Amino acid sequence: MSTFILGLIAASITTLAYVPQVVKTWKSKSSKDLSLKMLIAFSTGVSLWLIYGILEKDTPIIVANSITLLLSFVLLFFKFKFKN
Amino acid sequence: MSTFILGLIAASITTLAYVPQVVKTWKSKSSKDLSLKMLIAFSTGVSLWLIYGILEKDTPIIVANSITLLLSFVLLFFKFKFKN
Repeated sequence: MSTFILGLIAASITTLAYVPQVVKTWKSKSSKDLSLKMLIAFSTGVSLWLIYGILEKDTPIIVANSITLLLSFVLLFFKFKFKN
Repeated sequence: MSTFILGLIAASITTLAYVPQVVKTWKSKSSKDLSLKMLIAFSTGVSLWLIYGILEKDTPIIVANSITLLLSFVLLFFKFKFKN
């Protein structure tokens, strides 16, 4: 398997890994154990990766980090919405 | 700022973003809201990134994903240890 394919698989899994967390938080309506600092730092880092991908015109990095950024913003929204 | 520096900053922030989650989970002794599926998927993806970095002999990817993998394994351990 080429490392390019390996990179695509790794990027897909790490990107989509946040979907079960979004689903769990939505179902449980509970975000107490999620760290707000982690969500803010992670969203910041992913935003920088997105800028990096745009500047480098690197489509996989742009696509992966756009999806991850969307998921992390949803989790941030849930963190405030389900304040318990 | 060169995109290389931007990439290093992005990698550092997304890697270290998990530290506040580890600290919060350790202090609260509560991991109920953390998704086990997310932690397993994320650890799998990061492991693949680590293999990718080793095959590509890409030091920043190796360093960032080694730290992230360690942090995600700690969270996985906490998920089982603080079963509530």
